[in-house]
Amino acid sequence: MIAKCGTVIIGYGGMGGWHTQQLKTMEEINLLGVYDILPGRNLLAEEKGLHAYSSFEEVLNDPQVDLVTVAIPNDQHRDVCIQAMEAGKNVICEKPVALNSRQLQDMIDASKKNGVLFTVHQNRRWDEDFLTMKKIYDEGTLGPVFNIETRVHGSRGIPGDWRNAKVHGGGMVLDWGVHMLDQIMMMVEKPLRSVYAILSHVTNDDVDDGFKIFLDFEGGLNVQVEVGTSNFINLPRWYMQGNNGTAVMPDWFAENGRIVMVSDWENRDAVPVVTAAGLTKTMAPRTDDTILEYPLPVLHSDVRDFYRNVAKAIRGEEAQLVTHEQVMKVMKVMEAAFRSADTNQVVTDIF
Amino acid sequence: MIAKCGTVIIGYGGMGGWHTQQLKTMEEINLLGVYDILPGRNLLAEEKGLHAYSSFEEVLNDPQVDLVTVAIPNDQHRDVCIQAMEAGKNVICEKPVALNSRQLQDMIDASKKNGVLFTVHQNRRWDEDFLTMKKIYDEGTLGPVFNIETRVHGSRGIPGDWRNAKVHGGGMVLDWGVHMLDQIMMMVEKPLRSVYAILSHVTNDDVDDGFKIFLDFEGGLNVQVEVGTSNFINLPRWYMQGNNGTAVMPDWFAENGRIVMVSDWENRDAVPVVTAAGLTKTMAPRTDDTILEYPLPVLHSDVRDFYRNVAKAIRGEEAQLVTHEQVMKVMKVMEAAFRSADTNQVVTDIF
Repeated sequence: MIAKCGTVIIGYGGMGGWHTQQLKTMEEINLLGVYDILPGRNLLAEEKGLHAYSSFEEVLNDPQVDLVTVAIPNDQHRDVCIQAMEAGKNVICEKPVALNSRQLQDMIDASKKNGVLFTVHQNRRWDEDFLTMKKIYDEGTLGPVFNIETRVHGSRGIPGDWRNAKVHGGGMVLDWGVHMLDQIMMMVEKPLRSVYAILSHVTNDDVDDGFKIFLDFEGGLNVQVEVGTSNFINLPRWYMQGNNGTAVMPDWFAENGRIVMVSDWENRDAVPVVTAAGLTKTMAPRTDDTILEYPLPVLHSDVRDFYRNVAKAIRGEEAQLVTHEQVMKVMKVMEAAFRSADTNQVVTDIF
Repeated sequence: MIAKCGTVIIGYGGMGGWHTQQLKTMEEINLLGVYDILPGRNLLAEEKGLHAYSSFEEVLNDPQVDLVTVAIPNDQHRDVCIQAMEAGKNVICEKPVALNSRQLQDMIDASKKNGVLFTVHQNRRWDEDFLTMKKIYDEGTLGPVFNIETRVHGSRGIPGDWRNAKVHGGGMVLDWGVHMLDQIMMMVEKPLRSVYAILSHVTNDDVDDGFKIFLDFEGGLNVQVEVGTSNFINLPRWYMQGNNGTAVMPDWFAENGRIVMVSDWENRDAVPVVTAAGLTKTMAPRTDDTILEYPLPVLHSDVRDFYRNVAKAIRGEEAQLVTHEQVMKVMKVMEAAFRSADTNQVVTDIF
């Protein structure tokens, strides 16, 4: 029998709680406990039947601990992760891994220096909406893809905790952009040529409460990555166009989406769209006999595969899935987006 | 009784036919006939009971002709319009008025030199979908507006006639962009700070067969103007966000749209969205007790008011509605969009 990976969660907030719930169900992991700097959170953990360490040092000094998952405010990721790595612990850091690529490089350096695993909880690579769109993209279902739009819309503004303060690494680029950009970089392997970004400040001046980021990939593929927190009506989660068809997923669930493909390129029977002020044949809808409609493929995933991979990577049995290089690439795209928005210019020196 | 405005349509193609149909119903206009360089089109006009002139010169020499409407390929607008103005005729030019601002300036100069009216058929100012969104914007229904998205999506590619050739002024920026940019410039009176444009070439290399144009107006208002001709599923015709609500119009008809407004800013009862790989409170939908939904206002218009204004403007009774300055502004925004796409840069020296 393989030894279980002794794991402690640092930070018992929203995501800390999520991690403990996942880990409790995993036979590969021995969830040793949690530690939070707030005594109230530790008490809550104990009420929930978890062991709460009395200090971070106690975690680091516990030889049973193979792995710590760091789920604390973003501005503290670097120091806490490095401290854990210096103590010989393998580390999973919550996203966004750091506030900038310099901090991230420090963390990567600490990983190499101490010979420990260091990775980032890019859990949304396991989201099923993403896996569906990646499958369509990979299989060329729509023909050559020239446009991808990925949106996450809400209407609650940004959370009122540390997430609305720049000094703590708040804002939607770092919070949601990091997931969506990671997904796109996992989907599209073409070289990225430029980044243009527009940030919104509807409910918050200090950090962005939404954004539009435009990525121009080589070979004629454009991607629009968008987050909004003042959208009282949502636009679709995913919209993808290939030369031969279009796919849409209105929300997080592939069951609700569809694909429309050309079955016959003939443009016969264009009945013009007549509006109050004009008519248009160009924009006349296709007749039903020239298109075919399909459901989206529905995929299933187990997000615990992230932890399974980490456990195996620690034992040297697998390469880690979320690599330093991938994480650095996404960080540099976010930095390019911030530079673009600051200067209102297209950024081409990204990496 | 006021003398009717003697009018001839130059070019009896798709839009030429549309003009004659409108004019036949107007008591302010005396539709004298049409002229097309293709004999077959003139024959067709006569079959439809219209008088066909035998040459452009015959039109220009006819003292009954007060007004000519020029509905011919875009690259010929300048020369034909100027020739008509030199002959003392008032001129309506189809859109896009010209291929660039230099050509347009020549036309404006001819108008001033000859003391005749010169205007452009920006008919889609009378489109009811636009009037609805303009009303919402003007009345501040949604609170301060920070994002407007205006899209026209089709899936038939671009027409196979002169509209797919650059030399004739084809492409979707000039064909549909000119309407949508005109609408936005009529809606938003704030100074325009920058233009960024992405052109698509899915079905056509010579001209754009779609585009995304991003306008950054002073005061925190961003506008996305988008046309596609390979969209087998359409995104909404209009999407507008204010601080307090969002409006959407899925197609050309306000009856199919809606407004969702905040009624209560409290964020209570956020039930997290749980997906395969995570959860989010930030993007949790609002509960029904914190929002109110309204229909869009439905407005009605008569596009013949464009011609009524021209007839009155010729008699000096009204200022012309579609002014040289407005048309030049839109032309310069289109030129900025082409420069932006050519260089993949944000253009700030627009006007």
